[in-house]
Amino acid sequence: MDAMGRSTNSSAKGSKTGSGTQSADAAGGSDFLQLDIGQAPTGGRTAWLADRLRTAIADGRLPVGTRLPASRVLAGELRVTRGVVTEAYRRLAESGQIAGRGRLGTVVVAAPAAPRESTAEAAGPGPALFASAVRDGVVDELRALPCRIDLSPGLPDLAAFPRTAWVRAERAVLAGVTPADFGYGDPRGAPALRRAVVGWLARNRGIRADPDEVVVVAGVAQALSLLGRLLREDGVHRVAVEDPGSLGARQQLEYGGHTVVPVPVDAGGLDVGALRASGARAVLTTPAHQFPTGVVLDGERRRDLLSWAAEGGVVIEDDYDAEHRYDRPPVPALRSLLPDGVCYAGSVSKLLAPALRVGWLLVPPDRLEAVVRAKRYADLGNGVLTQLVLARLMDSGELERHLRHVRTRHRRRRDAMLRAVRARLPGARVHGAAAGLHLMVTFDDRGTGLRDTDLAAAALARGVKVHPLSWHRLTPGPPGLVLGYAAGAAHDIEEGIAVVGEALHGLAPS
Amino acid sequence: MDAMGRSTNSSAKGSKTGSGTQSADAAGGSDFLQLDIGQAPTGGRTAWLADRLRTAIADGRLPVGTRLPASRVLAGELRVTRGVVTEAYRRLAESGQIAGRGRLGTVVVAAPAAPRESTAEAAGPGPALFASAVRDGVVDELRALPCRIDLSPGLPDLAAFPRTAWVRAERAVLAGVTPADFGYGDPRGAPALRRAVVGWLARNRGIRADPDEVVVVAGVAQALSLLGRLLREDGVHRVAVEDPGSLGARQQLEYGGHTVVPVPVDAGGLDVGALRASGARAVLTTPAHQFPTGVVLDGERRRDLLSWAAEGGVVIEDDYDAEHRYDRPPVPALRSLLPDGVCYAGSVSKLLAPALRVGWLLVPPDRLEAVVRAKRYADLGNGVLTQLVLARLMDSGELERHLRHVRTRHRRRRDAMLRAVRARLPGARVHGAAAGLHLMVTFDDRGTGLRDTDLAAAALARGVKVHPLSWHRLTPGPPGLVLGYAAGAAHDIEEGIAVVGEALHGLAPS
Repeated sequence: MDAMGRSTNSSAKGSKTGSGTQSADAAGGSDFLQLDIGQAPTGGRTAWLADRLRTAIADGRLPVGTRLPASRVLAGELRVTRGVVTEAYRRLAESGQIAGRGRLGTVVVAAPAAPRESTAEAAGPGPALFASAVRDGVVDELRALPCRIDLSPGLPDLAAFPRTAWVRAERAVLAGVTPADFGYGDPRGAPALRRAVVGWLARNRGIRADPDEVVVVAGVAQALSLLGRLLREDGVHRVAVEDPGSLGARQQLEYGGHTVVPVPVDAGGLDVGALRASGARAVLTTPAHQFPTGVVLDGERRRDLLSWAAEGGVVIEDDYDAEHRYDRPPVPALRSLLPDGVCYAGSVSKLLAPALRVGWLLVPPDRLEAVVRAKRYADLGNGVLTQLVLARLMDSGELERHLRHVRTRHRRRRDAMLRAVRARLPGARVHGAAAGLHLMVTFDDRGTGLRDTDLAAAALARGVKVHPLSWHRLTPGPPGLVLGYAAGAAHDIEEGIAVVGEALHGLAPS
Repeated sequence: MDAMGRSTNSSAKGSKTGSGTQSADAAGGSDFLQLDIGQAPTGGRTAWLADRLRTAIADGRLPVGTRLPASRVLAGELRVTRGVVTEAYRRLAESGQIAGRGRLGTVVVAAPAAPRESTAEAAGPGPALFASAVRDGVVDELRALPCRIDLSPGLPDLAAFPRTAWVRAERAVLAGVTPADFGYGDPRGAPALRRAVVGWLARNRGIRADPDEVVVVAGVAQALSLLGRLLREDGVHRVAVEDPGSLGARQQLEYGGHTVVPVPVDAGGLDVGALRASGARAVLTTPAHQFPTGVVLDGERRRDLLSWAAEGGVVIEDDYDAEHRYDRPPVPALRSLLPDGVCYAGSVSKLLAPALRVGWLLVPPDRLEAVVRAKRYADLGNGVLTQLVLARLMDSGELERHLRHVRTRHRRRRDAMLRAVRARLPGARVHGAAAGLHLMVTFDDRGTGLRDTDLAAAALARGVKVHPLSWHRLTPGPPGLVLGYAAGAAHDIEEGIAVVGEALHGLAPS
């Protein structure tokens, strides 16, 4: 309502009551959204125009599918240079709200669930989400809430999804598949994808495997679900997890009937001595880029963990975003060092898109049959077309090209977030920025009593979504935030961190 | 080797040693496969040519991707009418081995795992599969074995998969999805597909539902896996199943930790009195077209089963092939009569293709949250692109068009199988031919001691795959076979049943 009111008063209203056929008045205005350039601050015309468009998309005046005016036309009506319009369009394209569609021009492709003004003022269920203890499905609940800027961790640059290459590969797949390929298949997955994954893992993760050892799964989540079953069959009911560590993984193990045993993480990664002392017979770990701290398991700890595995411990290696490195050398997978002692899970969720729900699981040879059985009775195997398209993208080098492309974008966004954190959150300590899709910040809470759930709630009340670090902790520790930077545009990241800074100020004891 | 030997001896050899540039000799021959029309029996040239092509595809001389000569060219070389060649090509296209590819011409798209001659003579692991008690994964093992003609039940006409419509829909989907659609989504599935499924179920199955009640799953197999978890949480460890009933479903329930309780099926369907007497608190049933007998649950039994559900029994309705009807009126789903008492599972496996791994699950309102939780921790939800393409095909009427198209083909194949059974298996009694994708035959074993596993083994030794009815029985009964007709061409069905007839003769006490 506020947005509507604001855009129909002042001179825009004048242009509506004027000649209907005249597209621009003397002051530089457009019938399209009743835009009045006179409202734009000097030197801020691009930001003003982008904001007007964003508001109109959010409040439904420009629904998905709407074609925007050609930049040349709109620039002429507003009496601005064409660069002002194309730059505003570019910003919305980068945040995924509009997209070029060839001869169709530029169209609206996504609407946030609520306009920015109303989100900023709504009390809603958002802040309440952080008020109580962490409950089942809380990440899904947070995801479903509307927001203006999403800095949740765990997503790559989704606007860069290679749509054209995907359709091209799909067409080729459908021209080549046999009728039998459409039937019930091998529960381990399509042979073509298992071969492609073997090549991918050899090239990128130092892992040597045979396609017959690879089980295609519906993401790392399903890998954990299947492994949970195997552990129960082996009488293993306590599973060690990193602390801090992934809330989702922890909740999944608990749903599978396991008691999770927290093992501390420090600058060297998982504390293997504490793991030994815990008596747990299995551990879930993220050695290449620990979630959420971003540390790499150091050499001595790696050797120690592999000894523990060789003595009979079960290591579940979640290699969730190992391919995203910026300022550090690659770290080979643990699995590459001890194939008989490590269960390895990876996926395309951080390479391409979580929504594809495709991953892979490699287990020691003596567990393979049990895993295949678990996959068979879970769902009879993954859907075949997505598998075959992925196999093609992997084999053709298209996926590696995509990875190089998004890595450049991710690095730029990471740098934007680091700059913004330094400028807007001067008291924050940054962790794990050398790789991955997120970084972690912690705050000194001595004397302030700051709770990171309060900070996340205050940020959400201002339209910015972040994860409080305490969600990912099993035992208390300093407050902090887990901040994803890969999925958003640099200007959104800067603005989002500025909002977090305001929220932090608002919480400071007065 | 035999096939190679046969096609290089006699006059084909002569044409090879003759002028290399001459494409046909006076007797009507072609360099292509060294075909010699002189070997073809009078009046059987089409069958002969189809057989030669099939053999060359099977033994690797014509690998997948090979382009066949234009029919006009080959007809000229062989000195036959063009109709002989186009009809031979049509037969191979119908059995899915070759396909027209526009300007690319006709290409080989599928090779059977072994040539017909060697399959017919191989002892291999095939017959041994039937020798022992039914074990875990036996259906997968049978599926992986090579054969010449596959009459296994459970597959629709896969050669009719609407490849063009699929690519078109996929392109439209990728042009319209938002970046956020590529992220983690609602574990219940994409809203667009849940809406489309609601429309489909209302139009085709008499079911009224809200999209929020639909959970998209990876086929009925996953639906059973999720429901198994819920039943265990409710303390239900014994689940009644139809006898005879699906081996795969039974094995899945057992893997999920349940004891299956057999309840007899007769001409009226599931014996609800026996269900009551069993004391089981849950039942898995296929009321619209019982597997494998093909009977429909009659009116009185339906009312009785719904009373049982209203008294607290859990009915799991597997509506696996309800859309395939030929000679009988539609039967509404049980779910349409008692939404609060029936868990309903369906899928696209029999509508389009099992390899898509997409189905849907509707549960009573008080179980919805628990099912969503189970789906979340199973895999976080189905892959989104396949869901959105399916939604488009459902919304556009393309899927209904496809169903009408394959129904005509299925009916023709069903008729071919009925004729063949009457001609080649005169002692067999046919059950459940009015609908579905398979029929069941039983044999009178009085005095013969016929075991259907021996018959299936003997047929497989001759290159024809069938399911012995005893695989799908929990308690002993007359021997029989479960014969799928939907996936194969009519001439393959006729030949396959003829082979089963020979196998039966070979087993007769001499």
